[in-house]
Parts: sequence; structure tokens; C-alpha cells
Amino acid sequence: MHGTENIEPNLYDEGRRNVPRAYSNAKESDVHEFIPFELEPRGPAPSQQGVLQVTQVDMLWEKNMADHHTKLFSGAHFVIRRGQEFQVKITFNRAYHPDKDKFQLEFRIGSSPNLSEKTIAIVSSFPSKRKLWNGHLLKNTGNTVLMGITPSASCIVGKYSMYVVVITSAGRFRDKNHSQEVYILFNPWAPHDIVFMPNNNEQEEYVLNQVGMLYCGDSQNVLSRPWNYGQFEMGILDACLFIMDKCNIPLIYRGDPIKIIRRISDKLNSKDDDGVLVGNWSDDYTFGTAPASWAGSVEILLSYASSGIPVCYAQCWVFAGVFNTILRCLGIPSRTVTAYKSAHDNYGNLKTNMIVDQSGRFDMDFTTDSIWNFHCWNEVYMARPDLPVGFGGWQVVDATPQNNADGYHRSGPASVYAIKQGMICYPFDASYMFSEVNSDVIVHRREQDNRLTKLFVDHDFAGEKVLTKQIGQNIWTDITNQYKYPTGSSERQEALRIAESYGCSRDQRDLSKADVKIKATLPDTEIGKDFKLSIELENLGKSLYNIDVSITGNVVYYTGVLGPQFKFKNFLVKVDPSKTVTEHVEVKAAEYMGKLLDQCSLNFLVLAEIKETGQVVTTMQHANLQAPKPALKMSGSYKLKEEMTVTLQFTNSLKFDLENIAVKMEGPGVFQTKNKNYKLIARDSSITWTESFTPDTEGQKTLIACLDCAFLRQVFCHVDFTINP
Amino acid sequence: MHGTENIEPNLYDEGRRNVPRAYSNAKESDVHEFIPFELEPRGPAPSQQGVLQVTQVDMLWEKNMADHHTKLFSGAHFVIRRGQEFQVKITFNRAYHPDKDKFQLEFRIGSSPNLSEKTIAIVSSFPSKRKLWNGHLLKNTGNTVLMGITPSASCIVGKYSMYVVVITSAGRFRDKNHSQEVYILFNPWAPHDIVFMPNNNEQEEYVLNQVGMLYCGDSQNVLSRPWNYGQFEMGILDACLFIMDKCNIPLIYRGDPIKIIRRISDKLNSKDDDGVLVGNWSDDYTFGTAPASWAGSVEILLSYASSGIPVCYAQCWVFAGVFNTILRCLGIPSRTVTAYKSAHDNYGNLKTNMIVDQSGRFDMDFTTDSIWNFHCWNEVYMARPDLPVGFGGWQVVDATPQNNADGYHRSGPASVYAIKQGMICYPFDASYMFSEVNSDVIVHRREQDNRLTKLFVDHDFAGEKVLTKQIGQNIWTDITNQYKYPTGSSERQEALRIAESYGCSRDQRDLSKADVKIKATLPDTEIGKDFKLSIELENLGKSLYNIDVSITGNVVYYTGVLGPQFKFKNFLVKVDPSKTVTEHVEVKAAEYMGKLLDQCSLNFLVLAEIKETGQVVTTMQHANLQAPKPALKMSGSYKLKEEMTVTLQFTNSLKFDLENIAVKMEGPGVFQTKNKNYKLIARDSSITWTESFTPDTEGQKTLIACLDCAFLRQVFCHVDFTINP
Repeated sequence: MHGTENIEPNLYDEGRRNVPRAYSNAKESDVHEFIPFELEPRGPAPSQQGVLQVTQVDMLWEKNMADHHTKLFSGAHFVIRRGQEFQVKITFNRAYHPDKDKFQLEFRIGSSPNLSEKTIAIVSSFPSKRKLWNGHLLKNTGNTVLMGITPSASCIVGKYSMYVVVITSAGRFRDKNHSQEVYILFNPWAPHDIVFMPNNNEQEEYVLNQVGMLYCGDSQNVLSRPWNYGQFEMGILDACLFIMDKCNIPLIYRGDPIKIIRRISDKLNSKDDDGVLVGNWSDDYTFGTAPASWAGSVEILLSYASSGIPVCYAQCWVFAGVFNTILRCLGIPSRTVTAYKSAHDNYGNLKTNMIVDQSGRFDMDFTTDSIWNFHCWNEVYMARPDLPVGFGGWQVVDATPQNNADGYHRSGPASVYAIKQGMICYPFDASYMFSEVNSDVIVHRREQDNRLTKLFVDHDFAGEKVLTKQIGQNIWTDITNQYKYPTGSSERQEALRIAESYGCSRDQRDLSKADVKIKATLPDTEIGKDFKLSIELENLGKSLYNIDVSITGNVVYYTGVLGPQFKFKNFLVKVDPSKTVTEHVEVKAAEYMGKLLDQCSLNFLVLAEIKETGQVVTTMQHANLQAPKPALKMSGSYKLKEEMTVTLQFTNSLKFDLENIAVKMEGPGVFQTKNKNYKLIARDSSITWTESFTPDTEGQKTLIACLDCAFLRQVFCHVDFTINP
Repeated sequence: MHGTENIEPNLYDEGRRNVPRAYSNAKESDVHEFIPFELEPRGPAPSQQGVLQVTQVDMLWEKNMADHHTKLFSGAHFVIRRGQEFQVKITFNRAYHPDKDKFQLEFRIGSSPNLSEKTIAIVSSFPSKRKLWNGHLLKNTGNTVLMGITPSASCIVGKYSMYVVVITSAGRFRDKNHSQEVYILFNPWAPHDIVFMPNNNEQEEYVLNQVGMLYCGDSQNVLSRPWNYGQFEMGILDACLFIMDKCNIPLIYRGDPIKIIRRISDKLNSKDDDGVLVGNWSDDYTFGTAPASWAGSVEILLSYASSGIPVCYAQCWVFAGVFNTILRCLGIPSRTVTAYKSAHDNYGNLKTNMIVDQSGRFDMDFTTDSIWNFHCWNEVYMARPDLPVGFGGWQVVDATPQNNADGYHRSGPASVYAIKQGMICYPFDASYMFSEVNSDVIVHRREQDNRLTKLFVDHDFAGEKVLTKQIGQNIWTDITNQYKYPTGSSERQEALRIAESYGCSRDQRDLSKADVKIKATLPDTEIGKDFKLSIELENLGKSLYNIDVSITGNVVYYTGVLGPQFKFKNFLVKVDPSKTVTEHVEVKAAEYMGKLLDQCSLNFLVLAEIKETGQVVTTMQHANLQAPKPALKMSGSYKLKEEMTVTLQFTNSLKFDLENIAVKMEGPGVFQTKNKNYKLIARDSSITWTESFTPDTEGQKTLIACLDCAFLRQVFCHVDFTINP
């Protein structure tokens, strides 16, 4: 994959392009100050006597950035949004006479701006045929004019240089002394922008909210993980432009959110290239930061933008959290979404194959598919002009390097509605996303001769629940029905049928229905405690059954990939017709402690074979062991510019000592990440960490704390508070 | 894009996959000979007394390879096709008793074969539920059995190892001494294969024909360029597997031609990665072979496969020729196609913008789009299970690094029928291909204030003609109607309307029709001769017009990108109403000689402004100057194993000397590339080169010769002959 660095491909392109294609938002090195008209005889630049000259350009930061919903950017840059007017006040050396003076505002982006690539946009003080960017004179008082400028709703997004160009009979004078940097972003408030979002509450949440919730754990026990997106924090906007440059997105495509999103979903992971984040699912994070210990995106993006070196390490929620920051920063409405029981790594068909050996244990050498306990991805909101009507709205995009069906590790944007309808023929990667939430789970037994016998099919295991944060509130809302119709409904059958017609092959063979129903339940349990697994066997038949039950307990990654087996038990149960028998299997802490992985997840596979009929029923049950949580306490006057303190408290209520604990605290508009490390938090002992800060801005704030050590991952808390004027 | 080489991404994948994903067809290093059954007590491997043992395995090369249309592979490998039975004769140490002896044939591919990834396929001597690969006992005589094996019609394509496994009560004995290498390819003859092609003549042409024609020049003067695909030549099949490995195509996807083709279209060019060919359109080929001087794919593929280093240099026909070799070698029906006047590098919308300055000259700084005189790509024939019914059949795929709309330089496969219908919402890259053949060409004038005024729109300039070689004959056939409906038809309007609804924006503004018709014509001219350009101006109006005509003559790359301007002329013509005036403009050899590029192409832009109305009409005319051709003469008995001679003759009939001439001769099944270099071929002098060879195989043969120097590109000839038994 490497080694072409010495070949400068553009060298050979001379006969293939008239103008080199621009892949970078870097500023051009040389902008001419005087451009003579070709029809004039050449000679020295004419004197500027009598010519209109610029003495001042005022970008009216406060008004424009309030109008354009960009005032949360920390003030270092002038940022506006496309498809919406902003105003510029220009002062000349003398009065401006519309009938004889002509000037233009020229917006240039990239190192070789060019009219036909639309990397130059021109707005005139006089009528012009080209109306992609609109401009008009709002006021003309004395030496000062007020211009209103509306960038095209489809223009390139990025950092422009704005020049005032005065046109005389001799040529065009470009004023270089008063040039301005203008960042232009996507605009969900502009009706002609492809990312237009009509509802105000939605705009507030999906573009402006700097804090969000990522959901982990499992569907029975949802863990809400606060995340600091911090899209308006200092340096983040420039980091996003840096990433677009690293993606080699030609400037001509930087007005198209579909192209931008697809490439960033590729670039966010370090697979295929030097992307932003290194995925690591190994449980060994020695040379970086454990995925579970990040509290937000800001630290990650600033680190990458300053070095260009992939940041270690990430798992799905980190990819989704950082992607969400970039999307909201650029002005594309977005949210993070968690799917519980997400089927992965299969062939993009609808079969997730789990294989057990002849004794009923998981056959780890032969099971390649897996069902993630949860998987986080992003949704972006936009029209889809490239698809038939009806497939706009929320689109799935996934930066976790899972799917490389098209040759690179990226997924989406895929229309959520297309996934629901089974219309997986539309780009991008809809068939992959469809199988994540619709896959059949099939349990096979590997026989002596290496053949597989199908034991059990579950059509509804995968994609059990899809959650996202509610608008305006830190609680989740269930959006499963946006991804699929209810189980058993005719619409769902139809969607599956349609998906099949586009090449997804479902499992069609019906196994004869077994006469026994099986159910496993687990209590909520804290790490380090014993607990009991209950197995309920119901005999639906008309005669007594002898049932051979085997239970395999494995420590499990959140990806569904099995770690060490810590329990195997096999026993026989007699169940009378129409009766239910419940068996309790005790699990001792000593059995699983010392084997736990990352998220303290345990998985139990229960296999029950009815001796009389040979039928097999299976069930899987999954538990996330619970950990003690830290708490955050605020004190102070909650007033602007007055000192506040925050105290983090954590008590190790577990039955063992914790070592090498890393703690992070951060909050957008409060303070950037603060880190503290503890060598030891002994059993039953506590830590207290106090920080003080002085709020600069008023309004609703959130502080997030995150605690991490090898034994305890996914431990966090947050506090919301309001700073008054 | 580089620098991750030190990070071994799979290191971190432990918790993400149960089994590492296989990306390579490399053989596994360690295959067990005895696999005990788990239920047996462990101990030393049981004695093999009485156990069935293999003494010989006969793959019946001749019969199988004739049946599977693979006998043209030069005999080094055993090659068959999927979805079709082949036979294996196995001899044991004793008679085989079906009632008590059990054996299997095991096919393993890649370094970590795995049942659920289908990198292991098993065929049994006894009934089995898994029937993807079919096997049955055809004959059982004495110690020898004849097995018929049908690989699944969707199985992985590549190099397998086949083992005979004998199953005993103790375990499975895998016979390693008689293992066989089996190459399994796509099968256009198998009705269940996605690449099935029903017609026998088509199979012969598009899979088995080793020689083809690539069309260059321009639509008025089609140049037929013979090309040696040589897909069955020694080493080519292994080169194809090497390229699939370099593409990192996971083995699980190697049964899917869509995934394979898309990735190879990416990998054939060295953009983004170390692909097969370095594109070079610069007219400077100092450090490699000039694109026009290749006579076939074999040299290129063998060089790449032996080194992994991109081969210098290629232009579109080289990419298409080499891609065709790979496709046919793997068994995917394919052909090369040439589109004349192919619109390129625009935004995937339907506008190709040409910009002139105020004096009527091409404005080379502002014109970014271009129209290629011709562009070669490939078509592959296959079903499209991922698309709605009706979009199977020929699919466009393009390996020339043009389009990187999806982030990488690749295009297709895109359904030709979808392009014709404007259904560009279907993957992959159909909108890009659609605009190549349907783009509006718009001529703008850049005004003093940098604004553009539209002068002229031509809705039918692009995609003028699409040609491919006829089945069974070395002449071309016009397939334009497979890409678009006739100009002006209602179907074509409808297709354009549909494409627009999927985001292609056409030029809608109608310019007021001008009262003057303009036409330019050029005679066929040999390099180094003077000629005349004729301009015909017809006044359709009712009054006399004064017409200001300007003519710009540029040397031009075949990509439509302009080289040096060699002529500019401006004159006034008076045309009476309803009259036609023809003006002749003389072009002297001295004007263009010394400025010529690669393909000796000249381009004339004619701009006529009617003084009275201000209207402008334009036309472009393009000429390929003609070169003298070499000739090939055969002599001998045309009989198998008897010596033949071939003589190449070339006379420099030009008005100048030629220097540093490289000549190549080659032909599949005749001899591999022979090279000869001449320092000088003086004006009016000739060269003669004679080679002798002894044909090994009978049948129709082709020899191709190609002559190349800086002044004379695209000079070639070929001779067809038949070797009798």
C-alpha cells in the first residue's frame, strides 16, 4: 500500500488537466494586486490617482455571527454559513458613486483558485449575470457602503480569503491590505442548503449542542455515557479543515456533504491510511489511551491536528463521538446512535452464523461472525439529490472500521428510510447496514466430519433496539421503528423480501418447531459478587421430556467476540408436559474475576437438547457487571466571571484494590481536559479531586468526568449547571 | 497517506474478530495430517492399519481443461471453472467399500482456511446436507474411484489446495502427499454463475480471444490498434492472483465479481497506492515506456507481478487493455470500448465548460474541463443481483485514474442500461459515466470583470460515438445506441430528465438561436504536409451580415487538453442573406512541426461573431495527422512445429528523419515481446527486421508490431494467420 511517496502523480498530469486540481484549503501564495485588461497596451501599472481606495473593512462580527448561529465559535475566526446573507461595511478614501465607480468582493479559496472550479466567487456592486453568490448594496453613506452578501447555498465550505477589487478602465485593483479570512459552513437554517433542517429544536440539538449522550452497556441495562463534542472549542474548526485536507477531498467537492461525509468516515480510522483514530479491541492499551477513558472529542482532534499522527485508541463510541463533533462543527446536523445486538462482519448477507462444537461449547475457531452487544454510529440529516424522492432525511454513516465491502473501511451515508424499506440497492453500503439490524442468527453444530448442522434460527435477535438522545433532554429515545417495521408485521416481511431481491440471502429453511421453550435470566450484579443464572424450561408438548442442558459462560468483548471461558456446566432436566422447570446455576466471583475484559461483560450460551425428539433450543444471555460511579459536586455563585469549584468523589466499593487509575474532567465552555492519575485506590477507600474555574460565558453548561483503569472501564458521570449573567 | 506501515492493524483486532480475516491467497503454512475426534480419549495417533490410504490422485488434466475451456492456459497449472463438474481419479491401497469407508475431498484456500468463511469446501463420498459443492461417485473399479466434483457457482475464485481426507472412527486422516493445486475461475458457461453468458460466439470472443482491437484517433478517422491481451500466456494467471492479493481483497469477497472488479479498477492505476500502471499524460516518458509503444498486456503484467513496482507508463488504452487481460483471465467476459468525444473531469454534472478570452482564444488558465478525443474503458458482462431486475448485462468499468468522486481513483461497475435510462442512482459511479457521454458543451467568454458570458451550447457534442470490436472479426461495431437513445428522441429527453432528478444539472438556459450556421472541415493530412482548413458560413437571415471570424489552432493532447497554440487568425467575412461563403485558411507544416505532441493531434476553435446581432457561433474541428505504417509479412509452411519467418518493414516517407525508434513485435501463442531499437531512420530510408519462430500450437494466430519514437506515436500493424496441424 505504500512506497509511492516519491512519485508525484501530478507531474505526469500535464496533458490531462488544464489546471492542477486543488486538494487543499491552503492559502494561495501569490495574489496579484493589479490585473491589467488585456486590451489595454501593456506598461507600468497606472497611477491610482482618483481611483477608489479601501481604507477599512468591517465584517460586523457580532451581528453576522449571531445571525448565522456561529457565535459559539470561540471568537478567533469570522464564521458564517452559506445560503444566508451577511453584511460587510467598506470604507473608501472618498465617496462611492454607483454610476461611475465599480467594485467587487472576491472570495478565493485554496492554493490555485479558479472561476470554473468555483474556488473563486465574485459579488459585484453592479448588476451581474452570474447570480450564484448574491450581493447588493444595502446602504451608501458618505465614504462608507454596506454590502449584503449571500454565498450560494451549495458553495464550497471552508476558509476563504475575501478581497475588495476596484475596477477601473485600466484594470482591476485588488486590495491586499484589507483582505479578510471568512470561514463558510453548511447551513441547516437555509432552505436551499442540502442540509436544511426545518425544525428549530432540532437545529439547536443537532448542530449547536456541544454535549451529548452515547449509549453503551446492553439493551436491558443501558449505560448513558456523557460525551463532550465541543465542536465550537478553540482549534476544532481548523482541525476539521485539516482533516478534509488530509482526506484529499478536491475543493470542487467540498460543497457536497455526501462526498465529504463518505471520505471523512474513511479517514476517521487509521485503517487504509493515517486516519484520525487507531481502533483497538485487544484489551491492551499500553501505548495509548484506553477507548473507554476518553470524555470527549476535543483532546483527540487537537492532538491529531497538531501532529497528523493517528491517536491511540478508539472503539465504536469514540469514532462516533469524534465524527459527531466534526459534522456539527461543519454545520451538518448529526447525532450518535446506538444499536443493541448489532450483527457484524458477515458477508453482507442476512445470516450471522454461530458455531458450537459437539459438546455445546462455542467453537471459537469456526465462528467468524459476531453480534456486538452494542454498536455506535452516526446519523446525518440531509436531502439526497442523488436518490429518488423519499430517501432524504436521516442517513447512517459509520466511521468504525468494520465494513470494507467497497475496498476501504467506511460506511454510508445510507438512507435510514431505505434501510427500513429494504431498498438496499441505493448507495452507500445500505445492504451492510440493513444486515446489521436484520440479520438472522443461526446456531450450527460442527459435526465430526466438519459438516455443520443447523440447530436454531432466531430471526429477531439482531438489531434489538436503536437508541439516540432525546432533543433537549439527557435521556434516550427509542428509534428502532425508524430502522425496521415491527417484528411479524407484513411491512417487515415485505422489506425483507425487497432486500432479498437485491442480493441479501436470508435463511429460509424452517427448522421444525421445538416443543420446549427456554429462557435465561440474570440479576443485576456488581463486579466481584456471586450471582445466579436462572434457566426456565417450559414443556409445550404432550409427554415428558428429558432435556440435556449445557451452559457455557464466557467473558466477552463488547463486540461479541468471546474471551476466556470461565464456566461450563452440563445437566439433565426432566420436564412434565405443560410444566415449567427453573434451574439456578450459581456463578462465583472467583470463577470470572481475573478473566474480565474491558467492559466487564459476560455471556452465557444455553443449549438444551430434547432427548426424545433430538430437537435443540438455545438462548444467549448477556450481563454487564456493574461498577461504582464517581460523583461531581459544584459549588459557587453560578455567576459569570465568578469563581466556581467542582469536586469529583469516588469510593472503591469493590472487593479489591484498583491500580493505575486515570481520571479526566472536561466540559465545553468550562475547561478543556484536565487529567489526574492515581497509583492506587484501595478497597473501601475514596478519592477527592477539586478544581476551580471562572466561567467566561453564561448559559447551560455540562462537566463530564471519566475514570478508567484496567479493571474498571466505562465509569463516568456528569453534572449540568447554568451560569447566570 | 503513508506512514502506518509500522502499525500492524490486526494486532489490535483480537477482540473484534474471532478469526483473523484472510486477505491473501498465500498457502497455509501448516496443515494437520491427523485430526482426532474430540470425543475420543487423547493419545498417540492410532495406527493406520486397515485404513484406506491414497496411493495416487489423477486430475485428468486433458479432459477437465477441455471441458472447462481452460486448455489455452499454457499447461503449468490445473485450471477449472466453478459451477461445472470436473473429475478426479483416486487410487487407494485397497478396494473402496462405500458402505464402510468414508472419505472427503477438502479444498482449502488462503493462509487460514475456515468453514464459515467458505475458504474450506468439502465434498464427501457419502451423503451430506451441505450441498454448495456437489460431489458424487461416478465409478468404483478395483482400487480406483472416479469422483465428480462441482464447485459452487458462487465459490471463491483462486488457487486451492485439494486434499483427500479419510475418516475413520479415530479421526480424520488428511493425505498430504497427494495434495493437488487447483485453480478455480469464474465460469461464463455455467448458468448459475453471475457471469453466465448464454451465447457461444460471445463466450469465444469475450473470454477466450487473446487478441483484440483498441480504437484510437478520432471519430472521423478511427485508428484500429491491435492489442495482445495474452490472458492465457505463462504467468498471467498468477499475476492476476498477485494483483488480487495486492488489492487486499478479503478471500470471502473473491467469489463476487462486482467486488473484485471495483477493487482492481482502483489497483490498476498507481494513484492512491502502488497500483499496476503509472498514468502519464505529460508527453515526457524518459523514465519508462511511452504509452503508445506497448503492443499488449503480457510484458506489463509479468513485470508488475515479479516486482510489485508500478509499470511506467500508461494512458487510457493501456489501462483498458491490461484490465481486459485480467478480466478474461479470471473468466469474467469483458471487452474494451472506445468513446469518442468523452467529457471528463467536470463535477459529474452535465456541463463541460470551455472558456475563451475576449479575443476568441482558448483561455487555458480558466478551462478546467476537457473533452477527450477518445477514451477507452472496459465493459464486463454479468448479472447485477444488487440492483433491480433489468440492469444486468454489460457494465462499464474504468481503470484510468479520472474519477475520484468516491475518494479513490476508480469507476464502476455501472450498468450500461442504467446509463442509457438515466437511472444514475444505482452504484457504482453511473452519474460520472452518464456525463461522459451526455454532457452539454458550453462555450463561455471571460469578460474584463472576470464574469463569464455564455456564447454557445452544444447538447450533442459529447459521446459522439462508442465503438467496440465485432465478435469474430477485426472490425469495429458501433454501440452508441447501448449508451444513449438517438439525439432528439423522446426517450433521450426522458433519460436526461431522469438523470437530472438524480442530481445531474443540465444547462437549461436557451440561447437565442443565431442566424448563421458555421462548419469547419479538414482534409486527411500526413504529418509534415501543408493543408487547408475550410470554414463555411451560411447566412440564414434576411439581411447582410458582417461576421468577425477568429480561428485558434492548438496542438492538443488526446485528452483535449491544449498544448501550444500554433495559429491565430482573425478576419471579417460579409455574407449575403441566404448565401454561403467558404473561406480557406492555409496551415503550413512549419507552423505546427516541432510543436506536435504524442498523437499528432491538432485542434481548431472557430468563433464567429455576427456584428449586427452580437450573436456568436462556434465550432471545433480536430485532426489527427497521419503517419506512415509498418507492414508485417509472413513466410513459411504454416504448419505445426515447422519454422516460420516474419518480416517487419517500415519506410520513413516523412519529410524529416526519425530518431531513437523503439519497435516491438509479439503475439499470443507465437512469441512473447521482442524489442529492437533504431538510432535513426533517415528520411526516405527503410528498415527491415526478420524473426523466425516455430509454432507449438495450431489454429488462428495474430502477430502485432508497434513502432514508437518521440515524433511518431500510435504506429502499429498486425497480421493474422492460421497454423495447420
